[in-house]
This record gives sequence, structure tokens and C-alpha cells, in this order.
Amino acid sequence: MRKPIIAILGATGAVGIQMLEVMEERNFEIEDLKLLAHISDAGKEYVFKGKKYIVEEAVESSFENVDITMVAVEGDISKKFMPHIIASGSVAIDNSSAFRLNDDVPLVIPEINPDDIELHKGIIANPNCSTIIGLVAVNEIYKHAGIKRMVVSTYQAVSGAGVLGIDELKRQTEDVLSDRETTSRVFQHEIAFNIIPHIDSFEENGYTKEEMKMYNEGRKILHDNNIEISCTCARVPVFRSHSESITLETEKPISVEEVRGLLSKAQGVRLVDDPKNNLYPMPIDTAGQDLIYVGRIRKDFSKNNSINLWCCGDQVRKGAATNAVQIAELLVKTL
Amino acid sequence: MRKPIIAILGATGAVGIQMLEVMEERNFEIEDLKLLAHISDAGKEYVFKGKKYIVEEAVESSFENVDITMVAVEGDISKKFMPHIIASGSVAIDNSSAFRLNDDVPLVIPEINPDDIELHKGIIANPNCSTIIGLVAVNEIYKHAGIKRMVVSTYQAVSGAGVLGIDELKRQTEDVLSDRETTSRVFQHEIAFNIIPHIDSFEENGYTKEEMKMYNEGRKILHDNNIEISCTCARVPVFRSHSESITLETEKPISVEEVRGLLSKAQGVRLVDDPKNNLYPMPIDTAGQDLIYVGRIRKDFSKNNSINLWCCGDQVRKGAATNAVQIAELLVKTL
Repeated sequence: MRKPIIAILGATGAVGIQMLEVMEERNFEIEDLKLLAHISDAGKEYVFKGKKYIVEEAVESSFENVDITMVAVEGDISKKFMPHIIASGSVAIDNSSAFRLNDDVPLVIPEINPDDIELHKGIIANPNCSTIIGLVAVNEIYKHAGIKRMVVSTYQAVSGAGVLGIDELKRQTEDVLSDRETTSRVFQHEIAFNIIPHIDSFEENGYTKEEMKMYNEGRKILHDNNIEISCTCARVPVFRSHSESITLETEKPISVEEVRGLLSKAQGVRLVDDPKNNLYPMPIDTAGQDLIYVGRIRKDFSKNNSINLWCCGDQVRKGAATNAVQIAELLVKTL
Repeated sequence: MRKPIIAILGATGAVGIQMLEVMEERNFEIEDLKLLAHISDAGKEYVFKGKKYIVEEAVESSFENVDITMVAVEGDISKKFMPHIIASGSVAIDNSSAFRLNDDVPLVIPEINPDDIELHKGIIANPNCSTIIGLVAVNEIYKHAGIKRMVVSTYQAVSGAGVLGIDELKRQTEDVLSDRETTSRVFQHEIAFNIIPHIDSFEENGYTKEEMKMYNEGRKILHDNNIEISCTCARVPVFRSHSESITLETEKPISVEEVRGLLSKAQGVRLVDDPKNNLYPMPIDTAGQDLIYVGRIRKDFSKNNSINLWCCGDQVRKGAATNAVQIAELLVKTL
């Protein structure tokens, strides 16, 4: 194990900036760091562990001598640079959806399938934010009782759409409170004081791509093509942290007390389930940290072996940046 | 059929004010009108069809000669006045939850079970807002294919908590945007830019009363003790109109096209289901009118005979005031 040379592609975006912060928090040891972005952001400066780094324009040759490239750009940009990342021998940890379902690309949540990392052929994919949050919440239940079917409704924060999403919610909210006209650029409709049941584009089957990710990525991460997942994704006027209402049908009976017991010890989870004291997961409590909070655990009396729960997690951190850094930490051990 | 003398108990609250507006819009014909409220609101003036009415303190004798009393107060106040309403021979249309599940109290959504009105013994109950919105959305599917089970997650606006709920969201939002400390009086936690998975109080089974209403009231309205309903209710930072993500398991197979066909002609429903043009139900589009918008209709491939849909409706209007006025219109025909 040696200290790696790390590149962050998309270093000036919401996830890229968060990756750098998380690496510093977790005392991630590096030999050197390259911050890469579009030419319009070249020259910006960031400090990592007390040392200043200047953002460079990402070009084909940027990845020479880089051990691990953290890819924090959209799918099309990821696809454009990936051949050059791989050709230079750097391993990519890709936060985009471009390669997630490729057979030779491991899709990894370190709490669930860390060993899949070893199967990489140059790319390891970071799952979709809602998938990470939902699966970390139910993983121990899955391991102990099996899951036949999950029905999920999401309440997704605007920071899933990056810095521009945050700006749009803030600006529109101010406009509405001041009786000004609003305009929408990032979201399809006004998000201030509204709910938009539409994230990513629609597929032929009537689902959005975001909704299909939970299904396709969930099956791949769990190595289980029998688990059924139906998902409805909605954007809500929350700055940060996604929430999910999940109804689970388990293979074997499991009691609410058993679920609480499992989740109180689960990796990456904080059990917050004390309704008598008004304690349950909420976005404002989960923003800015890495645990997935799970609560509102109760028997779903509408079906045998069914459990309802509610979870929240910071989608920029555990739903994106932190999960990628955790993968990098595991990868470093193999260098 | 003669013109009735109407009283509104709770005339100065969000639902009471809305009842008066809806009665005027629908050209509800009256002989006379009494606006009743707590003594602190006595003396306030409202105009109905061009005539001024002054709010009086609600007292035991307020209901003499009143044909129909629209009850727009909380359950404890409703319980306090109900004996006097009934003793004076007035029929109560009660928006509170106090009597909804009583055997001799019809619980009515005029689009679904109008005939139940005839069974009243002095009280007709208006269902919970989320129950009205969800059931109007699925009623035609229920009638044509049967429903075995509904899994519902709600996104409920703050106006469900009345004028004070609206004020709290507005004030807290301004505080957050100005980096001021916030305080919560109406809701259990800060609602600005947050989601609170807690509406009404918790029961022993881990559900909130609000969540159990969908189950208990749904079964009563549909006269069906076999339908299974599991509900998770969350408060969202939206001023007006509730949204619901619903997964339905039907008794008989029904295609998405059949569902669309049924809903395009359904009473009280507007089909808004054109994802290619970014059209689906949203709170900002449904506020201030009476139809329940339904869209995002798609096959739930996680289960046979299962359908996902998304609906929104104005919970102060159709979810409360309008539904009560519709009941009053039917009741007037029996006078």
C-alpha cells in the first residue's frame, strides 16, 4: 500500500468539492492531487490539508501518472474522458451513471458489496444517490430476512441537481415571498413551495431514468435478480438530504424489534426511531454527515411479512462523494 | 326543496373561510347565514353574495332554527357543540375527525358514496383531506378492477394545519434565508426546507392517526373491509395542495390505457398524464380549484396487477371545504 496520486475530474462541482472535503476529513493520504475541470474553471484554487492546489483544464493527457481518478462529472463528459483515463493506467471511480450497468464495471456500496471492487477493469462505478441511501437503510434487513419487493417513494433535495439546483431553489423562494415572477432553468417547473414528480428523463415504460436506477442498480449491487423494486421519485423544496418512504416485503418474517436491533448495529446507519419523543429521520438533521438515518419502523399490516420505514441521508456526501472516497480507500489497499 | 338556513361553526378558520367562498362560487342558495366562532373572533365581518355578515360567538343556543351546520373546528370543539346542534334539529356536516368512524355517522365523498347521506342521524362526516384526495383519484379503478391493496406515501402541504401552518412556513423560510434562528410552534420541527414524517399524534402501532385515517376511513367510505391500505404521511414545505404517491394492487388486470380512459371521464378528476411534455400533477397547479389531478400512471412491474400513480389536490378545497359544501348541496335536496 502506497500513497496514491489522485485526480478529481469535475473538481469545481458540488460533488467534486465535497469529495475534497471528505478526503480531508477522513485524512485520506495522497502523494499528489490534480484538480481538473472545464477550462472556464481553470485557475481556481482549493486548499487540501493546508496546501493550495490550482484547478487545471481537463485534457486527454491529464491522467498520466494518476493512480485514481475520482470522476464527478455528468455521464457524457465521463464517457469522453474515460478512454484516456484507462489508457493512462488510472483507475476511475465514476460518479456518473454512464458505466454503472456495464458487466465489467463493479457498482459498489462499501457497506454492502466491498469485494466487488476487486473485479474492476479500470472503472468502478458509484451508484445513484437514492439507491445508496435506500440500500444502506435496508441492507441488514435484506441480509437477515431477504427482500422480495420494495416500494419506494422519494423526497429528493435540490442539491441532487448540483450548485445550480441550490441557487434555483433559493432564488425562486425569494421571488415567491416577494411576489415576483419566477423562472425555472434547472428544474422543469418552479420548485419553490412545490413538488415535481420528475427527476431525469422519462423512459418508454413511463418511469423516469432516476426511478429505474433504484431497480437496476439495486439488483446489481445485491447480486439478486429476483428482488422487485418499484420507485417513484419526486423533487422537493429541500436544499440537502434525500428522504425515502420504503415499504418492504421480506422473504422471512421479521419483527419490528428485530429490525430495530439490526439497524442499531448496522454499518453506515443511525437508528432514529423514537416517535414518542418526536424523533425520526429528517433532512435538516442528516445534512452534512455520512450516516443514513432510519426510523418510523413499523409493521405494514396491509401485507404479511411487510415493514414500513423512513430514511434520510445526505446525497452529496454518502449519496455521492463519501461513497466514492470510501471506494478509493479500499482501492488504495490494493495498490 | 327549500332554501336552508346555514351556520358555519369555525367561520374564521382556513376551512370555514374557504367554505363560504366555495358556497358563493357554486351559487349555493340560502335563506340565511350564521357565522360562528370563538368569542375572540366575534365582530369580524365577511361578505357572502354581496351581503355583509358579522361573526357571532358560538354558544349552545346558536343552532336554533339552523337547517345545516357546517362544522369547521377541531374535534374537541366539535364534540362540545354537537349535542346542541343535534338538539336544535340542525344537521351537522362535520369536518373534524370526531365522529367519522361512528356507526351511525355516514362518511361521504359525493363522487363515491352519495347515497350514504340518507342514513344520517344528525351528523354527516367529511373525511380526512388525504383520504378524499387519494380515494377520488382511485375510485374509478376500484369500481372497474377492484383494489386489494394500496401503498400510499403523502407529501402534505402546511395549510393542512390551517392559517397558522401557512404563517409558520412563510416566517421560517424568511428566517432561514436571512440566517436568523427559527422557532417552531405549529409543527414539531422546522418545516422550512425540511420534511417532517409526522402528522397528527402517534398510535401504539407506530402509525400516526393521520396514517390510520386513510385505512379506517377508506374502508368505511368504500364499504369494503377487505381493502388493505398502508400509508406514510409526511409534511412538506408547500403552502397548499397535497400530493400522494400511490401503488395499487387491483383484483383484476387493468392496463395503463384502461386506467387513463377511466380517469379521463372520472367525476372530480382531471387526467394530467403527458410526461413527454413534462405534464403531471403538481401542488402549484392544483391549488385554488376542486379537481384531483392524476398522472404518472404506469404499470408497476414489481407485482402482477399493480399500478403506480401520482395525484394532487387542494386539501383546503376538495380535501375539506368543497367536499362539505357538496354534501350540503345533496342534503338540501332532502329538506
